[in-house]
Amino acid sequence: YASGTLQQRKPPGVPTSVVSRPWGVRPRGRRAFHAASCSFQEVMLTSERYRVQRLPFSHLSDRDVAFFEGIMPGRVITNPEELKPFNVDWLKSVRGDSKLMLKPQTTAEVSQVLRYCHERNLAVNPQGGNTGLVGGSVPVFDEIILSTVLMSRIISFDKVSGILVCQAGCVLEKLNEYLEEQGFIMPLDLGAKGSCHIGGNVATNAGGLRLLRYGSLRGTVLGLEVVLADGSVMDCLASLRKDNTGYDLKQLFIGSEGTLGVITAVSILCPQKPKAVNLAFLGCQSFAKVLETFTTCRAMLGEILSAYEFMDEKCMELVEKHLRLSSPVAGSPFYVLIETSGSSSTHDEEKLNNFLEQAMTSGLVTDGTVATDDKKIKTLWSLRERITEALTHDGYVYKYDISLPVGKLYDLVTDTRARLGHNAKNVVGYGHLGDGNLHLNITADSYSHSLLDAIEPFVYEWTARYHGSISAEHGLGFKKKQFIQYSKPSEAVLLMQRFKAMLDPKGILNPYKMLPSGS
Amino acid sequence: YASGTLQQRKPPGVPTSVVSRPWGVRPRGRRAFHAASCSFQEVMLTSERYRVQRLPFSHLSDRDVAFFEGIMPGRVITNPEELKPFNVDWLKSVRGDSKLMLKPQTTAEVSQVLRYCHERNLAVNPQGGNTGLVGGSVPVFDEIILSTVLMSRIISFDKVSGILVCQAGCVLEKLNEYLEEQGFIMPLDLGAKGSCHIGGNVATNAGGLRLLRYGSLRGTVLGLEVVLADGSVMDCLASLRKDNTGYDLKQLFIGSEGTLGVITAVSILCPQKPKAVNLAFLGCQSFAKVLETFTTCRAMLGEILSAYEFMDEKCMELVEKHLRLSSPVAGSPFYVLIETSGSSSTHDEEKLNNFLEQAMTSGLVTDGTVATDDKKIKTLWSLRERITEALTHDGYVYKYDISLPVGKLYDLVTDTRARLGHNAKNVVGYGHLGDGNLHLNITADSYSHSLLDAIEPFVYEWTARYHGSISAEHGLGFKKKQFIQYSKPSEAVLLMQRFKAMLDPKGILNPYKMLPSGS
Repeated sequence: YASGTLQQRKPPGVPTSVVSRPWGVRPRGRRAFHAASCSFQEVMLTSERYRVQRLPFSHLSDRDVAFFEGIMPGRVITNPEELKPFNVDWLKSVRGDSKLMLKPQTTAEVSQVLRYCHERNLAVNPQGGNTGLVGGSVPVFDEIILSTVLMSRIISFDKVSGILVCQAGCVLEKLNEYLEEQGFIMPLDLGAKGSCHIGGNVATNAGGLRLLRYGSLRGTVLGLEVVLADGSVMDCLASLRKDNTGYDLKQLFIGSEGTLGVITAVSILCPQKPKAVNLAFLGCQSFAKVLETFTTCRAMLGEILSAYEFMDEKCMELVEKHLRLSSPVAGSPFYVLIETSGSSSTHDEEKLNNFLEQAMTSGLVTDGTVATDDKKIKTLWSLRERITEALTHDGYVYKYDISLPVGKLYDLVTDTRARLGHNAKNVVGYGHLGDGNLHLNITADSYSHSLLDAIEPFVYEWTARYHGSISAEHGLGFKKKQFIQYSKPSEAVLLMQRFKAMLDPKGILNPYKMLPSGS
Repeated sequence: YASGTLQQRKPPGVPTSVVSRPWGVRPRGRRAFHAASCSFQEVMLTSERYRVQRLPFSHLSDRDVAFFEGIMPGRVITNPEELKPFNVDWLKSVRGDSKLMLKPQTTAEVSQVLRYCHERNLAVNPQGGNTGLVGGSVPVFDEIILSTVLMSRIISFDKVSGILVCQAGCVLEKLNEYLEEQGFIMPLDLGAKGSCHIGGNVATNAGGLRLLRYGSLRGTVLGLEVVLADGSVMDCLASLRKDNTGYDLKQLFIGSEGTLGVITAVSILCPQKPKAVNLAFLGCQSFAKVLETFTTCRAMLGEILSAYEFMDEKCMELVEKHLRLSSPVAGSPFYVLIETSGSSSTHDEEKLNNFLEQAMTSGLVTDGTVATDDKKIKTLWSLRERITEALTHDGYVYKYDISLPVGKLYDLVTDTRARLGHNAKNVVGYGHLGDGNLHLNITADSYSHSLLDAIEPFVYEWTARYHGSISAEHGLGFKKKQFIQYSKPSEAVLLMQRFKAMLDPKGILNPYKMLPSGS
C-alpha cells in the first residue's frame, strides 16, 4: 500500500472531549486514564482503511476454541463486546477483528497455545498493556489475541544484586511500587506506566524518561524466557550481570515487537531508589540555549543528572488550553525540565544551585522554578508527560518519533512548520533531548490526505539526510513498517527477514507488523 | 575431545622468569609488557595437543597469496618468523599454524578478502590485539589471520553527544587517551588495554573494571559495521542513542567472537571524564564482611561508586612475592578496592569519608588506606590489576571466570580449595564483586592431568548448580566451547548453531571456536 494511506482518517463529528474509561486498568495510569476520543466501534477496520490483504492463515473453528477451553478453562474470551477494547489501539487509530482472546497464566500454557497455533497455521497477536503508538499491539485481521494480562507474578527479587525476575504481564508501575518498598526502582519509566506490561516494554525496547541515567533495556535486561512460534520454550532467564557463553539470543527478542517469539518472563537489573530527587523547570530564549544549557548541566551535574527533557512553547499552550494545567514559568519559546537523582540531598542541591546560578548569570536561562518535594515534582513532570494527551484534544495528530544528532533536533520542527504553513493547526516539538530523541507532532482539525502528503516522506527524508532514526523508541508496528529503509540499509532489512523466516517459518507471530511486506 | 585434554601442559625446564618483549605494541600495555614465560616455538600445536580434526577447508595456494598481494600489496605476511607471535595466544596455551596474515586498512579490503575466502572455502581467523584468555584469537590450524592492526583510524567524535566512531583496530588505551583530551573516557577499561583492539573488545563483549558504573557494551555500543562471511558489508554504524527500527542486528555480533562476521568499525557512547576519582583499599576479616561492606558502600556512595573489586590474601601474597609489589594494608584474609568517580571532589570525599567512618566503627573493615592522587591510585590499582600476571609466575595456571550470585561467590573458592588440598599449589579468588564475577585460579608446579580431572567438571557443575555462568567475560573461544551446556540450555545452543549456519554456511569464520563441535 502507498504511504499516503498510512494514517487514520478521523471520523467526522466525533467530539474530542469524550473521555472513555480505561479497560481493566486502574485509573492511576495516566495514559490509560486520559484515553482517546472516539468509541471503539467508530474506528474503521485496519484491513479496510489500509486495504491490506489477509495472509492465508487458517480460520478459527469451534474445535479450536474448544481446544483452548480445555487447556485454560474460563480464560478464553469469545464475546465480541468483551473483545472490542483489545481489538483497538490506545490512539484509536487501528482496529482489528479478532474473535478470540486467550489469557494464559503460565509459560506452559503459552507454549501449548503456540504449538497448537503453529500446527493449525493460526495467526497470533501477542498483547501486553496495549499502549503502543504504532499499531503493533492489536490484530490487523482475526489474529488470536494472546494476552499477558494474567501473567503478573513476581518470581523473585534479590536485594543484594537488585535483580528482579517476573512474569511478562506485570504492570510497570506496580513493579516500581513493589521495588520502592525495598529501596529500589525500575530502570525505566514512561507515561503509560499504569497500563503497560514489562513484557511489552521489553518486546518494544521501550525508552522513556530514565534512559539518560540508567541506559536502555539492552543493558538492564539480564535474561528472558521466550516461547517461540512452534511452542518451544527458550529459557534464558539468567540473573547474572555478566555471561559470555554463546550468542546473546535474548537481544534478538528485545525490540522484536512480538514477531519472533512471545516473552513470558523477564530478569532485569534495578537501580537503587535515589535518596534525593530535585527538579528544575526552566525557560530558554532559543534552542541554541537549550543545547548549551544541556552541555553545561551535564558537566556540572554529572552523575546526578537523571533527565533532560525539552518542550516548545506550543506544547505549553496545548497543555494549558486542553488540560488546564498551569505552568509557574511562562513567556519563553522553550522550556527544559532537568531532574537530578542522587544519594545526598545536601550535595545534590548544592550542585543544582551552582548550575542554576551559572545558567542564570550567563543568560542561558531566563526564568525557572525548582522543586524538591514530591507533589511539586509530580506537577511539573505532568507539564511534560501529558503533552501526548493534550495533543489528542487538539484534533487529528500526525505523530513522529525521531532520533537525530542533538544539534539538529529542532531544525526538523522549524522546517516542517515552515513547509506546512497554515495547512497545519499546530506543529510542536518536545522530547528526550538528552537522548537525542524528538517527538514531532502535527495537529489539524481533521485528517487530510494532502497534509499527509506534505509531511511524508518529507519528515523521513529529512531524518535520513542526517542519519537519524525514523523511530527512536515507538517501534515500527503496523504503521511505520514500510518506512524502515529510511533508517536501515536493505542488506540489514533482508537479514531481518531471514531471521524472521528462520524463527517463525509460517509467519504466525504478529503478522503484518514491523518488517515491510513484499520485498 | 575429552575435557581432560583442555589445558596446556607446561613444557618442562622453561624458566618462568623470562619475560619476552611484546609483539608490535608499545610497552605501556601491562598485559603485553609482562608477557608469559615460554617462547613461541615451545608451545605445542593446538591441533596436536587437543587432537582436533581439521575441517575440509581449502588449502592456501600461491595463487591465493598472489590475489591478496594484488588487493593489499605489502600487507600480506607469509614469513614464518613474522607469523609466529600471531599464531600463539598471550597465555602461550594454544598455537596455530597459519601461513598467512593479512592486514587490511579498509572495510572494502576486508570485504574483498572475505568474498574471496568464501568462494574459495578458505578458513579465516579474525584477530585484534590477541589478548584473549580462552584461545579464541589465534588459528587452530592454517586459518588465514585477518588482523585489524592497520584499521586504527578514529572516524569521528562528537563532544555534545559523547559518541565516538572508529575503526575496529584502535587500541583501547589510545582511544581513552584521545578521549581524555576532550574531557571524556571510554566506557570500558581492562588490564589488556595497552594491546587490545576495540573491535576485539566488542567481538568478545569485554567486561572489565568499569562495567559496574557504565554498564556493558550491549548498552554503550550504538552501532557496528560488520563484514559477513560472504563479504557483504552490513553498515549499522548508527550514532544514535535510540533507534527502534527493526531487529537490533548488531547485538548478535557483540560477543560472537568473530564467528558470525568481522567487525570493522564501532560507534560507542562515551561518558564524561570524572572530575574527581578516589580510591579506598581496605582489609576485611571475612567474606561476609566483604559482602556487607559492598551493600553499605553501594547505599552510601550511590551514584559515585565506580568499582568494587575484591581479592583474597593469597592473591596479595602472589603479587608481593612474584612482582615485589608492596601493599600498605596487610594482615587481612580479604581486601577490597573501592573506587569513586564523580563531578565534585569535595562531595565525593565527604561521601567516602562518611562511608569509611561507618565501615570502621561497625567493624566491617579493620584496616585501610585512601588515595586521591593519580600516582597512589595507580599503585593501589596495580595490586588488583596485576594478579593475572603474578599468577603466571606461580607455575601452571588453571583459569576460571565465573558469574555467580554474589552471596555464593567465594564458596566456590573455599570448596575448590578443600577439594584439591595439597594437590594444588595455590587456589585464589578475586574479581569484580560488584558484578558478581569471580576469577578463580588454581596454580600447580606443572600441568597435571589428574589435577585437571579433580577441577573439571567439578567447577562447572558447582557453577551450574547455582545458575551461574562458566564464562562471565572471557568468552568460550577454543578452550571452553565444549562446556557451554553448563550455562545454556540445549535449545539455546541449537538456535545459536542455526544462526551460525545461516550467517556463515561454509563455517569459514573462526572455525573450531565458541560453539561445541559435533552435536
